[in-house]
Amino acid sequence: MDRRSFIKNSAMLGAGASTAALATPAIAQDKITWRMVTTWPKNFPGLGVGAQRLADRITAASGGRLTVKVYSAGELVPPLQSLDAVIDGSAEMCHAASYYWQNKSTALNFFTGVPGGMTSRELNTWITNLGGQEIWDEVYAQFGVKAFPSGNTSTQTGGWFRGELNSLEDVKGLRFRTPGLGGKVWEKLGVTVTNMPAGEIFQAMQSGALDAAEFVSPFNDLALGLYQVAKNYYMPSFNEPGMGTELAMNKEKFEELPADLQAIIRDVCQAEVSQVENDYYANDPRAMATLVNDHGVVVRHFPQDIVEAGFAAAKEVLTELRDSDDPMTKKATESFISALQLMRTRTEDLEGTYVAERQKFLQF
Amino acid sequence: MDRRSFIKNSAMLGAGASTAALATPAIAQDKITWRMVTTWPKNFPGLGVGAQRLADRITAASGGRLTVKVYSAGELVPPLQSLDAVIDGSAEMCHAASYYWQNKSTALNFFTGVPGGMTSRELNTWITNLGGQEIWDEVYAQFGVKAFPSGNTSTQTGGWFRGELNSLEDVKGLRFRTPGLGGKVWEKLGVTVTNMPAGEIFQAMQSGALDAAEFVSPFNDLALGLYQVAKNYYMPSFNEPGMGTELAMNKEKFEELPADLQAIIRDVCQAEVSQVENDYYANDPRAMATLVNDHGVVVRHFPQDIVEAGFAAAKEVLTELRDSDDPMTKKATESFISALQLMRTRTEDLEGTYVAERQKFLQF
Repeated sequence: MDRRSFIKNSAMLGAGASTAALATPAIAQDKITWRMVTTWPKNFPGLGVGAQRLADRITAASGGRLTVKVYSAGELVPPLQSLDAVIDGSAEMCHAASYYWQNKSTALNFFTGVPGGMTSRELNTWITNLGGQEIWDEVYAQFGVKAFPSGNTSTQTGGWFRGELNSLEDVKGLRFRTPGLGGKVWEKLGVTVTNMPAGEIFQAMQSGALDAAEFVSPFNDLALGLYQVAKNYYMPSFNEPGMGTELAMNKEKFEELPADLQAIIRDVCQAEVSQVENDYYANDPRAMATLVNDHGVVVRHFPQDIVEAGFAAAKEVLTELRDSDDPMTKKATESFISALQLMRTRTEDLEGTYVAERQKFLQF
Repeated sequence: MDRRSFIKNSAMLGAGASTAALATPAIAQDKITWRMVTTWPKNFPGLGVGAQRLADRITAASGGRLTVKVYSAGELVPPLQSLDAVIDGSAEMCHAASYYWQNKSTALNFFTGVPGGMTSRELNTWITNLGGQEIWDEVYAQFGVKAFPSGNTSTQTGGWFRGELNSLEDVKGLRFRTPGLGGKVWEKLGVTVTNMPAGEIFQAMQSGALDAAEFVSPFNDLALGLYQVAKNYYMPSFNEPGMGTELAMNKEKFEELPADLQAIIRDVCQAEVSQVENDYYANDPRAMATLVNDHGVVVRHFPQDIVEAGFAAAKEVLTELRDSDDPMTKKATESFISALQLMRTRTEDLEGTYVAERQKFLQF
């Protein structure tokens, strides 16, 4: 029975009944609908599907008391105005990646991921257990925003290259599409970096305006069709060991919600942190098999001198951020590096060693 | 206002009021309390703390409509009778590990983890995306149980050894405490395997009844005090690349819950899958530093011939399970191996390579 028919039924029993009923919190609380804008195209594998599922899970867990309606990229506002829509109140939530808003604060890069940085597990642990959420809250409080992690692609691939790479010399002068801090790393390696929306990459590769491009991982890359214009698929990315997404909300509106709805949003976001990554782990290998078996793609690892130079450049980028004049960027960088140095012992020595030994010694 | 005072207040308004109020689902629905028994001691780091937090999160997200009261190991029933308590109705939930109930079905080992098996990420992906949950449901339906994953320790350490190990020869005849399928693997390596509760390990090591023992990882092992009687701490475990925990419920009672409370339980469990692992990633390195710096523990990797023999023995154990006469065990093993073979390409080539390259090339 919904609230409207309840009120109607109560009214038939006289004023006393409806007053008593409305005095109870469970009834007095209105059902509300929130708008979630996203930076992802509709049904975009992994992240767009995850945004819709996150919305549906909030609606289901709240029994419809908080119904979330999703607007894909461009439906309500242009994708890169999503956070501004939350700030000005034309939407209550946005599902995006913090680094899209680095023009507001460079510190926001860290909550998505940075070159040479944390795996998805390390990033989530930094945020929940090692001070990351508190710094994120402090950065976003300046804009009246509150965010939680809402997913992660996990380790990304390094990119599509028309030619084979044999050494660091081969990348010098290449015109490569890659955005953000990763672009700064490639620039330090002598690459000519450009950024452009995903929808323009294919044509730029085909026309020869680009020599190489990177996007996400097989699950997302397959749909772009880049295998038709470049056969060398390099991995892993030393710049994107993961890409954490966010659910960013209007802070005031979030805090006005009753405690149980706040808890539901927090819990569903953390559940999606796990689920989105599961989607990549289940679907990337299938997409990779299609690329290799049906489209003749050749999977390659970057030559070691490129990887070494890449991590050296990543360290330079992180060191520059740590020396930033902006106190929040400095604080975020210091906290991030300190947490990385703590956790990497577990990731590298324990999990990394298990994975390497299994690869070497267990074959079915 | 709680339900009791609401009914009292309604009654003052006459019979009509209370009838109207009770006719609405939001009011008619009683607040209920469920009992969660666990196999963990009170405040046991990681898993016991996680069980309590999971209970509290369900209570909070449901606004107290479903309050979960936790009973630590032995408080209501002995720990290894926890699932039977759920089956016979003396508790509604148990927080445990499926492999404790392998006497009911050998297939249950897979939902916790098996030697040479999946990382925590792979295990969770198998369960949510690649058929694992359906098989788990089928196994547990025979007992009237429904379970969800509720956490994971991630990769465990290999064990505490009094002497240093230089080759496979050194383990032959050692008396080693390790339970379950991992024990079968060590037996194939010539070790004399015994199992005993955690509380008895220290004394057995001290008296010389045991030569070696394994438990979980630094976060849990530190509290056992084994560093006082064995200084060689070997890692990683080739038998326990993770230990997935479960929230197992009385299936009939779970299905009688309204859809929103079912959704809340499901979402909170998946949130805890992420959070418990974060707790291990944040706390294991700190505990390890204490062991090394304050207690003189020496961290070692197993010699490669032991690792090679370990994975060979693990493969034998898994092959025996795949050839089992029990159809559910056979089905679970086939599904598990097939999912592992799919996902390991991503884990080993993409994430594993990133982690190894970062370890080699990035130092702060």
